[in-house]
Amino acid sequence: MSRFGAGILNELPGLVRASATLLVADKRVVELHGLPFDTSHVLIDADERIKTLDTWRQVLDALVDNGLDRDAMLIAFGGGVILDLAGFAAATYLRGIRWIALPTTLLAMVDAAHGGKTGVDHPVAKNLIGAFHPPVEVLADTDVLKTLPERETRGGLAEVVKHAVIGAPDLLLRAGRDDPASFVAEAAQVKLEIVGRDLREQGERRHLNLGHTLGHAVERASRYALHHGEAVAIGLRAACRIAEGHCGFAESAAVNDALDRCGLPTRAEVGKDDVLQALRHDKKRRDKRLRWVLPLRVGQVDVFDDVPEALVVAALEEAVTSG
Amino acid sequence: MSRFGAGILNELPGLVRASATLLVADKRVVELHGLPFDTSHVLIDADERIKTLDTWRQVLDALVDNGLDRDAMLIAFGGGVILDLAGFAAATYLRGIRWIALPTTLLAMVDAAHGGKTGVDHPVAKNLIGAFHPPVEVLADTDVLKTLPERETRGGLAEVVKHAVIGAPDLLLRAGRDDPASFVAEAAQVKLEIVGRDLREQGERRHLNLGHTLGHAVERASRYALHHGEAVAIGLRAACRIAEGHCGFAESAAVNDALDRCGLPTRAEVGKDDVLQALRHDKKRRDKRLRWVLPLRVGQVDVFDDVPEALVVAALEEAVTSG
Repeated sequence: MSRFGAGILNELPGLVRASATLLVADKRVVELHGLPFDTSHVLIDADERIKTLDTWRQVLDALVDNGLDRDAMLIAFGGGVILDLAGFAAATYLRGIRWIALPTTLLAMVDAAHGGKTGVDHPVAKNLIGAFHPPVEVLADTDVLKTLPERETRGGLAEVVKHAVIGAPDLLLRAGRDDPASFVAEAAQVKLEIVGRDLREQGERRHLNLGHTLGHAVERASRYALHHGEAVAIGLRAACRIAEGHCGFAESAAVNDALDRCGLPTRAEVGKDDVLQALRHDKKRRDKRLRWVLPLRVGQVDVFDDVPEALVVAALEEAVTSG
Repeated sequence: MSRFGAGILNELPGLVRASATLLVADKRVVELHGLPFDTSHVLIDADERIKTLDTWRQVLDALVDNGLDRDAMLIAFGGGVILDLAGFAAATYLRGIRWIALPTTLLAMVDAAHGGKTGVDHPVAKNLIGAFHPPVEVLADTDVLKTLPERETRGGLAEVVKHAVIGAPDLLLRAGRDDPASFVAEAAQVKLEIVGRDLREQGERRHLNLGHTLGHAVERASRYALHHGEAVAIGLRAACRIAEGHCGFAESAAVNDALDRCGLPTRAEVGKDDVLQALRHDKKRRDKRLRWVLPLRVGQVDVFDDVPEALVVAALEEAVTSG
């Protein structure tokens, strides 16, 4: 179940019914907010580079050392990196134990904590090793957002705008204006409904990749100097532009306005060729044709595999600073 | 689906519908029988010690290097070690791709290939890291059994006798008399029916642990000098003896006769204290009480958590050579 609200972490102890627990937490978050639960814990200096098999192994060793059995529960407290990593440890320890996600960033609250994707990175690509293993509970405490660095808040807002375009039009007006705490639950709901119908991404879940095809490529081409949300913002703008030409999308200005208001970038300082190469990598992994999720209108998207390369190149020229 | 029979491997090409494939195979099996499918492959010198995170990583790297996407398929050709390892790679690559199991040992054909348990060992315990990820097809070609070393055949027969006691009484008379190829499908059926009803071992699947509580402890105490099937045979004899005292089981002689006929050992050359210590380890991992699966009669078992220690110690004294 997913729960949102100020102080919702206080409900945690009442939700833990387990033979034993282990907490995996972002060290900085614990420094700011304390431990959300009194138990054995592994504190991690979290950044994207720690989402590795080595750190996963470290969490597994802690599960072993604490003698956790199949009725035990892992609790993860942090942003997307911590949740992905800890969730994958829960997925693979004793062939799967239950876990609770306590997302601490806006991005994790509206996106990463939901839908059961867990995993770590492989040197050649992100999230290449993983499993579908949804947490039994998600507790998103909006009080925690008060200490979130501004750049992290902006990154989360990119996913809020994405969810607005996919299925919650009124969020487009609120992103960048209202306190994020006021719309976290609504923004998460878009994802929760879709993954409820299609956990394993056989169909509709692909809609959530809006802005991510080019976003991932730009993020990769920047060698992760761009944060994920910033790259997604650039990808969203490009998807809107492609959609104008391909399926008559007429609301690019509204989407761009929202992203501008959230302080999200319009261009990436990367080379066009690097992005094209990263796109080809994506292509290779999925199937022969690149699939684009494009908006038909704010609140409705669809998947297209017949986007002419010229439209992509034109959008790309707007999205990067150098040819 | 599970398919059994002489030459059934010929059906493999018709069953592979995938964007690409990778074969993970036991090197010795390939030397004897050739590749079952013409594709990229990883050959592994298979023994229990290779069921590690390092070998799993090697398989993942091969999946990456061959650029396999989500519609790709892994094919595993070998005994339980290869199937567990390759199945876990399939479970965790791109959050799970499909795989086909081609078991080549009697034990794998009647047991390991079925039921979706995949994983690798952790230095402190076997199968500690893993996932439930059933293969989409199991093809058990009984022709392959012709080249199986005798000790491996005997090990597989221990699981056949186990399945006989759990739910196929007529197999008790056939094990050690008939050609195993003639009853492989029937022996596997006992497991297939149980895991069909309880994949994640919430209840009935525990019945398949008959003989494994003491079996694992003895195997561990022998430092794996005993093969798994040999340890299970000793565990089966002990479970029968405990059941005599605890729930009036009256057919120990028939079970022991079958195990004798299969050339399986009656005692392990290990110390009683080592076995007791390994049992306590098992206890710690599961829950506070040790659960014993015991036969009520040949064809029916049940789970007991109230077995007096004296009965266990008495059975143990029969099962080991040194006090």
